[in-house]
Amino acid sequence: MAIELFNNGEHLCLMFDDLVDDSTGEAVQSNQFLIVDNGQGALLDPGGNMTYNGLLMSMHTVFSPKQLKYILASHADPDIIASVNKWMIHTECNVMISKLWARFVPHFCSVGNASGRVIGIPDEGSTILLGKANLKAIPAHFMHSEGNFQFYDPISKILFTGDMGASIVGHDEADTPVENFKAHIQYMDGFHRRYMVSNRICRYWVNMVRGMDVEMIVPQHGRIFKGKKMVAEFLNWIEDLPCGVDNMTQDSYRVPK
Amino acid sequence: MAIELFNNGEHLCLMFDDLVDDSTGEAVQSNQFLIVDNGQGALLDPGGNMTYNGLLMSMHTVFSPKQLKYILASHADPDIIASVNKWMIHTECNVMISKLWARFVPHFCSVGNASGRVIGIPDEGSTILLGKANLKAIPAHFMHSEGNFQFYDPISKILFTGDMGASIVGHDEADTPVENFKAHIQYMDGFHRRYMVSNRICRYWVNMVRGMDVEMIVPQHGRIFKGKKMVAEFLNWIEDLPCGVDNMTQDSYRVPK
Repeated sequence: MAIELFNNGEHLCLMFDDLVDDSTGEAVQSNQFLIVDNGQGALLDPGGNMTYNGLLMSMHTVFSPKQLKYILASHADPDIIASVNKWMIHTECNVMISKLWARFVPHFCSVGNASGRVIGIPDEGSTILLGKANLKAIPAHFMHSEGNFQFYDPISKILFTGDMGASIVGHDEADTPVENFKAHIQYMDGFHRRYMVSNRICRYWVNMVRGMDVEMIVPQHGRIFKGKKMVAEFLNWIEDLPCGVDNMTQDSYRVPK
Repeated sequence: MAIELFNNGEHLCLMFDDLVDDSTGEAVQSNQFLIVDNGQGALLDPGGNMTYNGLLMSMHTVFSPKQLKYILASHADPDIIASVNKWMIHTECNVMISKLWARFVPHFCSVGNASGRVIGIPDEGSTILLGKANLKAIPAHFMHSEGNFQFYDPISKILFTGDMGASIVGHDEADTPVENFKAHIQYMDGFHRRYMVSNRICRYWVNMVRGMDVEMIVPQHGRIFKGKKMVAEFLNWIEDLPCGVDNMTQDSYRVPK
């Protein structure tokens, strides 16, 4: 079922957290998002083949797929946009993704389907007009993907952070925002230490986000961080976490026996 | 057409470099590989939806798809394995990929197709028995993907390096090995500076590879490096290249105006 993150009558943000079949533990739970402003829609990180049917049906209840203007992709991983071929066939949307991945998106698609419909976002980010709203593509390179963007919605003040802030939980847990930050760390810690690329990079990101007006951090896996206090707790935590290449040594690169 | 990289009658290594339609410049050229040993086969980085039909037809001429034992995936990008759902349906192969991506592979697939067929490679690598050959999964984390493996074939002495050594050329150019290293740098330079994650990590990799018996470096995009002299030239070049996070500063992380 869709979770309403924000709704003022003209501007709507929905989260879908139960479309992946994570019951057997073989596929990682993931969240998909829909932003609608004045009749135009954007899907954020719509997911892989498992989530397509559920997302399409849920969309129909709030929105005609013909009005889908954009797929906004944080990066090119399968849980982010492996369903892109189906969206290309059944809607008229364009895909916005880092320019680093623009020429990789067609590999998800049948020949010709992506033609002229993939817009590469430059490394410095961009402003994206949806209805009357100016969404922002915020640089998040190496968190984790080399060419990586987060999407900031200045109306709801939600920062959709992709893998940053992700927690590995089932879809029932993902329904509710984080309540006790310290108790939640155990679900984020291993993921951020191994998949985030470098603490120096995380610090640049923290410095940038502290200058923004963010009411919610909403990641692509697991539970959301709601309210300025919880957002600050997350920033303080990730700022001090050694991760990725920080933890690699020559011993990590040996021919296996 | 398939290019024969190695063939001693019992052990065969084929490269396919012209299956992606790169004519319009929208999709990046990529190479796919097939190793056959004593009647068993493994596909390396079989590619996305565009390459599936061509690869399947080419395979039929040397090998029955029923004998396909493994898909070996360097990482989880779309040009690497977006076709995995089709291979899961039409063959009985298992997929070997970094344990970091094992739970992401099902997102490429229809529900249940990947069930029990994705084998996560631990960070330290592993030995993979194919026919009578012991292939090696070699750690290549952060080059570029967080969980990344290269595959070493001790019979042909080929190191299949995934994105390491990739060059951005058309499929006609990819047909022939690099002849003049200095003249070739221009086709690799921008890609490695932006997609490879850190010079320190590249140095760990170079130290490891210098201790191995490598006759060919065969990347997943562009031209191959053949012979010990050319392999050494590539190692010397990448050893000194600042890349990825080395080139990022606070200015790379600003809210766009």
